[in-house]
Amino acid sequence: MTRSELISSIRDRQSFLCVGLDTDIRKIPKHLLETEDPVFEFNKAIIDATHPYAVAYKPNLAFYESLGLAGWESLRKTMAYIPKDVFTIADAKRGDIGNTSSMYARAFFEQFSFDSVTVAPYMGEDSVTPFLEFPGKWAVLLALTSNKGALDFQMDHIGSDERLFEKVLRVSSAWGSKENMMYVVGATRGELFSSVRKVVPDHFLLVPGVGAQGGSLEDVCRYGMNADCGLIVNASRSILYSSEGLDFAEKAAEEASKLQKEMSDMLSRFGFSHK
Amino acid sequence: MTRSELISSIRDRQSFLCVGLDTDIRKIPKHLLETEDPVFEFNKAIIDATHPYAVAYKPNLAFYESLGLAGWESLRKTMAYIPKDVFTIADAKRGDIGNTSSMYARAFFEQFSFDSVTVAPYMGEDSVTPFLEFPGKWAVLLALTSNKGALDFQMDHIGSDERLFEKVLRVSSAWGSKENMMYVVGATRGELFSSVRKVVPDHFLLVPGVGAQGGSLEDVCRYGMNADCGLIVNASRSILYSSEGLDFAEKAAEEASKLQKEMSDMLSRFGFSHK
Repeated sequence: MTRSELISSIRDRQSFLCVGLDTDIRKIPKHLLETEDPVFEFNKAIIDATHPYAVAYKPNLAFYESLGLAGWESLRKTMAYIPKDVFTIADAKRGDIGNTSSMYARAFFEQFSFDSVTVAPYMGEDSVTPFLEFPGKWAVLLALTSNKGALDFQMDHIGSDERLFEKVLRVSSAWGSKENMMYVVGATRGELFSSVRKVVPDHFLLVPGVGAQGGSLEDVCRYGMNADCGLIVNASRSILYSSEGLDFAEKAAEEASKLQKEMSDMLSRFGFSHK
Repeated sequence: MTRSELISSIRDRQSFLCVGLDTDIRKIPKHLLETEDPVFEFNKAIIDATHPYAVAYKPNLAFYESLGLAGWESLRKTMAYIPKDVFTIADAKRGDIGNTSSMYARAFFEQFSFDSVTVAPYMGEDSVTPFLEFPGKWAVLLALTSNKGALDFQMDHIGSDERLFEKVLRVSSAWGSKENMMYVVGATRGELFSSVRKVVPDHFLLVPGVGAQGGSLEDVCRYGMNADCGLIVNASRSILYSSEGLDFAEKAAEEASKLQKEMSDMLSRFGFSHK
């Protein structure tokens, strides 16, 4: 999916919601465990319920890998089921030397037809650029994550006036463009979105950490939104597990709808120019 | 596998060779393509041929993932085939927020019975510690990699007297111990092994970059070996693809044997105390 198609999708749905498919077989409603592929059945119901409110789906690869071959089969079926007008993100945090990153890119872009993959920056340019060689596909590079461990290295000062996450943004933004790179910036550090926007004013940011992790949607939008929206905000657990009963999909739709309404309001307030 | 079992294995084989199973279906001998599972048939032959000379095998996950479900099935069969007296490393470069890293740990330690997984440090402590909670299992953390992109961030100075890779070593060494953590340090930067050993004198180091990438085994041993050996040196392409013909396994054995002899010599010269 191209950047302009993504922006159109945000305009049409008045939403920049990504539903994170962190599907945990230990948490899904018990009645689904009797089906042949409970993870896929759950995802299917969640996708049907949230599709009117979401512009993106983000399967979290760890949850599928933890189930072995059966998990990869659930992922394959899920990817085949997601409507083609929605942006898809393989949340896989990959990254290795060049010939290996090329293989990861083929895995996600060719085998599973994802639009994008999350990539870790530690190994530098040649670990990231192989993901940028596929037309219409994206690398979503970790910059500032939403977890406590983000403070261990990402906030360290490099030289006199730059932190590691800022250097990652600055240096990597020359490897691709706003047409094929996005950045992960956690919602739990809302006030730092101004610092991020000083370095990458135009790139889309994938924002985890709203919902279960406690980040503020309003702060993210105040400091992070640009004229193209420039944000994809993810919610996983707060949507997926809002009910453990037969009504799980209905409750997921309610949660997604609530977020979509808030997002529509944010688009009006914070400068989205494609109304 | 425990640390003392690994050291015994190095003593018994007089080798610290890891064979990297970067099995590329486009590079394996053509006659194998007629078999039902060419990747597994290739690995099986390589394992049979190199087992006398190797203390570890390291499947590179990207190569299996790029083949979709069939690749994961080849990996499963490969893991079932590797003899239990050999250390196994899932070269997967994983790492995410805590609940997600736990899922990756379950994937590799429980579904595939790997002894260890390579992990990226960018997301900090809570992305790494879930890999340390499985008895007898290891996290192999990226410190200083063998690729050109290692210069982009890993060598940056943090504060006055420490580079990022040194801080990663120092800080992370408190998360686990020499019994459940190793570090990736690339052979292409042989002279930096002294800097690494100042911070982590006792930990095992997994060393890629000898062979196709051009690192010097002698430099690695001179600056990196400790009294327990403390090194696992990986070779992938130079062993796997030394012949494209029917004799590929024989040639792989020759390459592995040559490396084992060099390693036996290094163990005598550079202070291995378990003779």
